[in-house]
Amino acid sequence: MTKTNQGNFFEDYRIGQVIRHAVPRTVAEGERALYHALYPARHALYSSDEFAASCGLESSPIDDLAAFHLVFGKTVPDISLNAIANLGYAQGRWLRPVWPGDTLRAQSEVIGLKQNSNGKSGVVWVRTQGLNQVDEPVLEYIRWVMVKKRNPDVDTTEIVIPELRPALDATDLCIPEGLDFTGYDFGLAGERHRLHDYAPGEKIDHVDGITIEESEHMLATRLWQNTAKVHFDATHRTDGQRLIYGGHIISLARSLSFNGLANAQMIVGLNAGAHAHPAFAGDTIRAWSEVLDRSETVAPGVGAIRLRLVATKGDSSNFTLKGADGKYSPDVLLDLDYWALMPV
Amino acid sequence: MTKTNQGNFFEDYRIGQVIRHAVPRTVAEGERALYHALYPARHALYSSDEFAASCGLESSPIDDLAAFHLVFGKTVPDISLNAIANLGYAQGRWLRPVWPGDTLRAQSEVIGLKQNSNGKSGVVWVRTQGLNQVDEPVLEYIRWVMVKKRNPDVDTTEIVIPELRPALDATDLCIPEGLDFTGYDFGLAGERHRLHDYAPGEKIDHVDGITIEESEHMLATRLWQNTAKVHFDATHRTDGQRLIYGGHIISLARSLSFNGLANAQMIVGLNAGAHAHPAFAGDTIRAWSEVLDRSETVAPGVGAIRLRLVATKGDSSNFTLKGADGKYSPDVLLDLDYWALMPV
Amino acid sequence: MTKTNQGNFFEDYRIGQVIRHAVPRTVAEGERALYHALYPARHALYSSDEFAASCGLESSPIDDLAAFHLVFGKTVPDISLNAIANLGYAQGRWLRPVWPGDTLRAQSEVIGLKQNSNGKSGVVWVRTQGLNQVDEPVLEYIRWVMVKKRNPDVDTTEIVIPELRPALDATDLCIPEGLDFTGYDFGLAGERHRLHDYAPGEKIDHVDGITIEESEHMLATRLWQNTAKVHFDATHRTDGQRLIYGGHIISLARSLSFNGLANAQMIVGLNAGAHAHPAFAGDTIRAWSEVLDRSETVAPGVGAIRLRLVATKGDSSNFTLKGADGKYSPDVLLDLDYWALMPV
Repeated sequence: MTKTNQGNFFEDYRIGQVIRHAVPRTVAEGERALYHALYPARHALYSSDEFAASCGLESSPIDDLAAFHLVFGKTVPDISLNAIANLGYAQGRWLRPVWPGDTLRAQSEVIGLKQNSNGKSGVVWVRTQGLNQVDEPVLEYIRWVMVKKRNPDVDTTEIVIPELRPALDATDLCIPEGLDFTGYDFGLAGERHRLHDYAPGEKIDHVDGITIEESEHMLATRLWQNTAKVHFDATHRTDGQRLIYGGHIISLARSLSFNGLANAQMIVGLNAGAHAHPAFAGDTIRAWSEVLDRSETVAPGVGAIRLRLVATKGDSSNFTLKGADGKYSPDVLLDLDYWALMPV
Repeated sequence: MTKTNQGNFFEDYRIGQVIRHAVPRTVAEGERALYHALYPARHALYSSDEFAASCGLESSPIDDLAAFHLVFGKTVPDISLNAIANLGYAQGRWLRPVWPGDTLRAQSEVIGLKQNSNGKSGVVWVRTQGLNQVDEPVLEYIRWVMVKKRNPDVDTTEIVIPELRPALDATDLCIPEGLDFTGYDFGLAGERHRLHDYAPGEKIDHVDGITIEESEHMLATRLWQNTAKVHFDATHRTDGQRLIYGGHIISLARSLSFNGLANAQMIVGLNAGAHAHPAFAGDTIRAWSEVLDRSETVAPGVGAIRLRLVATKGDSSNFTLKGADGKYSPDVLLDLDYWALMPV
Repeated sequence: MTKTNQGNFFEDYRIGQVIRHAVPRTVAEGERALYHALYPARHALYSSDEFAASCGLESSPIDDLAAFHLVFGKTVPDISLNAIANLGYAQGRWLRPVWPGDTLRAQSEVIGLKQNSNGKSGVVWVRTQGLNQVDEPVLEYIRWVMVKKRNPDVDTTEIVIPELRPALDATDLCIPEGLDFTGYDFGLAGERHRLHDYAPGEKIDHVDGITIEESEHMLATRLWQNTAKVHFDATHRTDGQRLIYGGHIISLARSLSFNGLANAQMIVGLNAGAHAHPAFAGDTIRAWSEVLDRSETVAPGVGAIRLRLVATKGDSSNFTLKGADGKYSPDVLLDLDYWALMPV
């Protein structure tokens, strides 16, 4: 009997099953520095302890997406080692900040199962939680993946398709305790635009581009202890290419969006996300955003803005998303729908 | 109206204008570790808390050049986004150490302006200050850049050319409070040579070479939140090459100079600097130094040595700098004139 | 007289000579984060402060191999700058954990010397110790290297060949104070296999592969302040290739071995090691292990497992080590014999 992890197959999942993922991780200043080296991250609240303090927080938290990647990475050996595709995200919420020194672990509950008609694979829906060292949830999201079956000849009949909300309402969002944007320093933050300067429907080309290198996406993906072999082993695919972890594209695009959205400080909600096409080393990533919604919140000076963030390996100034056939244009890599907190 | 930063053009600057740069940055152990991974940095005072304590400091400060890069990086969106060339540095002084946990911000005052005769661009001189979280200046320097004009057809007539000193005197240098080299451990520092072992005119070939990779210079440049697109976007130049941030070459050459100048511990003055030619991935960087001056200081056991540091992508053993035409030889990448503190 | 370090030649060593290596190094959270970015390290005890605390330690120590690399790196300028080959290791012991904030230095005693019959080089044996800031030894090992002679025409006659033990006994191992695996959480650690599930002779294919990039091995090697120029300078060898630091392969293979040996938590003994063939960027590294021995220890719940760890750039599922000629197969990069601590 082999001692190595072969990963779960579709038949291994049961509705209601709770998977406690392995290898908790203490995250600190080192991970913060690496995040800034790997991505052009400049949102002031994640860059400066003093800026964070001026917004009512005790210090600068670990970047919201770093927390997401760490939690996601923990789930890979149990959820997506035999995944054919990462199909979507829904109802993601950041529940409290992750502070340097916190230790994160993750667990997932299986909430949906549906065998594909070809009998070779099925779709698994999980609700994943990230928890800190005192078992407080810091993050939750639903994700669904297409997973291979171990045995294509035996059908599984249990079908549960969870009802997912297309988007969270602003009132569903958790605002970090103490957050207060009434004394927000727009000069130090880098831009003067506030919530009501952004109109639903408005599109912003984030202008800059970054060409990806193999070593960078591997450093990032390893940092999150994500072990999916497609990201690291050039001999794994017949074309000799390593697939770039989709989260790397999310963080690149989000960081690029600073230029035009410098005040969309904290990501607190993930409504939906599609990795439209795979990215490879050598691609030059650009990003554009569309304002989908905006809302005030109960926290002083704090608004919420709902944004579509699109990463492309082509031109970002023509805001191309889908073709006439309703499919993503070949250059589109990511279509992400999220809520961020912004001063009103 | 676009919400992204288009950068300033020559016409946007006014003498006396003070620009408060965005995105303060807390710098800690993580940035220190990355500095050691990105550069072959071995100066003991920046490597060991105990060594620093034996020299009268509370602990090992953030590397002097890391502080410089962080402050420089903050100025890029306001000063050099539309720069054609980074022309020079003068009167740079490190005013106090940066400690892990400090938060740095930067501001610049425009002190010189001169339109070029072609009408298409002009030279802007700024005096930049880096400040810590209690508003103490940690670093200051003058830098001048050639910046595009927005409108080549309208002349600007204001001409102010600041008087710059060719070099600081040793008495202008700020010596960190408490610094004391009387108990300096030359064995742990790695070399036995002290101030009076170095004679003005002496040249030192630093022997080692480092071949540059794309991902390394991008990791470094992002770490300093320097967003100039020429460093990151392979599609930006028609030749498909990314220009390497000049500061990356400064840090590589300074680190290489450990071999022969291990006791030139702390950089405290920047007299002049020229990025003679651009560097690209694949270049192998070597360095040589020339002793320009030396002086004792008022601090116990602490001397100051003035050095020319030359980075080359060619041979460093023939000390080539300029040709008969007075121009830098094609292999020369950097010509830096600085003061460092060294035990007497 | 040149001021740069030319390194020692064979004639420079004397039996009993103690070399105090330069440049102590403070190691903290930043180095820990980089270790996780450079290697797919997932052993829970080095990932989570809480997991380490549940095993009786005050917090998560610096990775055992990171401590090894740091100590090894310090010795390079004195021991292996003129080395032709790194011949072997013996009697390596980790004596106490290295904690974030510790400062490491290293010293070596020459314990063996033997000129080669060709007169051009000789073998030098050293016993190296790593010490922390209060002069407690944290690590010791014997290493022998082939070093060039300065003058091939003058024979050196002193011959001392130290007697080395082929392997440590389990009773020689130092177990960190307080270590207690009686409450070990196999779920959080990632695998359920304990000491007695591993039988001597058993072989484990660790399945995963990682393709190496130039920038990654250079980042790692610089992080340990290892300055051997073969790792960094693409112009140094006539084939334009940079040799990858052997320790980089050790850390890659050890990290890959998590998959199948997740509970072999702490390396405490190094019996032997051979860098069978050099590795280069582009190689895809895989690993397999063979169980050599196992033993209980005096610490509660703590067993010791002796493992052969083999890194290969070929297939790891056929457990190839040596050919009929007794020589390592061309794909084998590393053959390491070590002791690790594992719950019983």
